[in-house]
Amino acid sequence: MLVRAFIPAHITAFFVPVFNEDPLKAGSLGAGINLSKGTNVFVSIEKETLEKHIHIAFNGEPVKREEASISYSVAEKLVPEEFIGEVEVWQYFDFPNGYGFGNSAGGALGTALALSYRFGGTWLRAAQIAHEAEVIHRGGLGDVIAQLAGGIEVRVKAGGPGYGVVDNLFFEDYKVLVVPLGRLSTREVLDGDVVTAIEAEGRKALEALLKEPTPEKLMITARDFAETTGLLTGELLELAKELDKVLKLPSSMIMLGKGLFALAREEELENAKTLLAELEVPYDIAEIYVERPKVGRWLG
Amino acid sequence: MLVRAFIPAHITAFFVPVFNEDPLKAGSLGAGINLSKGTNVFVSIEKETLEKHIHIAFNGEPVKREEASISYSVAEKLVPEEFIGEVEVWQYFDFPNGYGFGNSAGGALGTALALSYRFGGTWLRAAQIAHEAEVIHRGGLGDVIAQLAGGIEVRVKAGGPGYGVVDNLFFEDYKVLVVPLGRLSTREVLDGDVVTAIEAEGRKALEALLKEPTPEKLMITARDFAETTGLLTGELLELAKELDKVLKLPSSMIMLGKGLFALAREEELENAKTLLAELEVPYDIAEIYVERPKVGRWLG
Repeated sequence: MLVRAFIPAHITAFFVPVFNEDPLKAGSLGAGINLSKGTNVFVSIEKETLEKHIHIAFNGEPVKREEASISYSVAEKLVPEEFIGEVEVWQYFDFPNGYGFGNSAGGALGTALALSYRFGGTWLRAAQIAHEAEVIHRGGLGDVIAQLAGGIEVRVKAGGPGYGVVDNLFFEDYKVLVVPLGRLSTREVLDGDVVTAIEAEGRKALEALLKEPTPEKLMITARDFAETTGLLTGELLELAKELDKVLKLPSSMIMLGKGLFALAREEELENAKTLLAELEVPYDIAEIYVERPKVGRWLG
Repeated sequence: MLVRAFIPAHITAFFVPVFNEDPLKAGSLGAGINLSKGTNVFVSIEKETLEKHIHIAFNGEPVKREEASISYSVAEKLVPEEFIGEVEVWQYFDFPNGYGFGNSAGGALGTALALSYRFGGTWLRAAQIAHEAEVIHRGGLGDVIAQLAGGIEVRVKAGGPGYGVVDNLFFEDYKVLVVPLGRLSTREVLDGDVVTAIEAEGRKALEALLKEPTPEKLMITARDFAETTGLLTGELLELAKELDKVLKLPSSMIMLGKGLFALAREEELENAKTLLAELEVPYDIAEIYVERPKVGRWLG
């Protein structure tokens, strides 16, 4: 039996990290957007062996335990102790790892949902195990709960599934333009001095957004946050300013990746595409994903 | 601009009412199923008047304030004070009112989402206003948060949106057979002596289900709950026993309506249909609805 899970990519627009010794109470405040592209996880089970083996692969390539500690720890929790056989977890990502699309959370949540579907459990417990692994192995603080919420989400109370509270904005007809340019280590940023600015500016951004909870205000607060924290600078800021010339709403920086995102109407996209092609900058366009993550038997 | 919202019908399988002076902390523990049929709410706004008017209609028939106190109170909260014009809220129900399909919550949540979409707000605030109106006017305690969760839901912590916690079960290929036979007043049941039995049996059912969180166990615990509380008796119990003969899983009683529901595979449905036709009992078949409620501009 092959089980498939789909978890949307999640872009954080701004955030406030909230640390806690209890991983389920750790999380983040902030806002972000779930995309129609993301992470597909396929789980296959073979019982013709004498030992338990768990294998994880990223985009078809097997990865070692230390390169996928989050997903391995999720799998080890959810495959029953007494199970004997081969468990293969195939994770496929629509965006590159480390670029700020919530891939580690997508892989963790997809693995947790697919294994729970196969071996037993519930959505909440699966999501909590994925969140805990993300927090403990420092993949991220808010992606799992944001991916569960879908749409344009606002994390109004920090914490994992069952603890944090996520709100959603109403929106109409927007597509998401993403410009993925490179990696940025969440871990390094959260260990750096910039955390103080992130905390202060993140809270300001959240307060401003909740006073005027619209997608338009989201992009304005996101850009303010990106600039005032000093995270968006140099060439990336220059590129954001170029994009601003062809789009109605400000673009902003993917938190945390070397990249930009923007909300745009269909008719605005042509100019943006032309600009990015001229600048020879890679880009992608996605829908906003408003459904829940999916999990089920995979038939084809 | 016409705005449409769709809220799934929600059948409660078993429950524990949890009362609290703060409506957002009142709610219920329990479990239930969201259906692909339910409540459609259309909101239209006309600005060509000199006063503010709010009109609500059920299935095309205008209803007075006292017959729709839940939805009127939601609308009065969400139409801005300074707004001048006609606000028309058209609610259409796929199942009859009072039969235990969560229509009052569907109407309240659909109205709240559609008006918030039109006038501003967020999903969480809209859902909280709908829940508060349900609790204050005693429409129900758990339907709104259950409808937001979708799928086969388990309310593991009582409370309104942002306070309660809802889990979901994994399931495969089930359809929902419903046999809607008549009304049962939630209010009267909750005011009666049976509440003590409901509280005790509801907690037992929840504990049993969480130990073995599957759709199969849900139906077993639901039926136990329905019989041990004394809610399922007489002709309705006889009919449930007839259905049991043609279905793998026990059927159970819709909480709270004079009606039954069952989970069945496609191939089991033919026998059930034949039986119900022979008995001249009305029935309907729905899918389990796993998406979030929908709201958006209505173009067609």
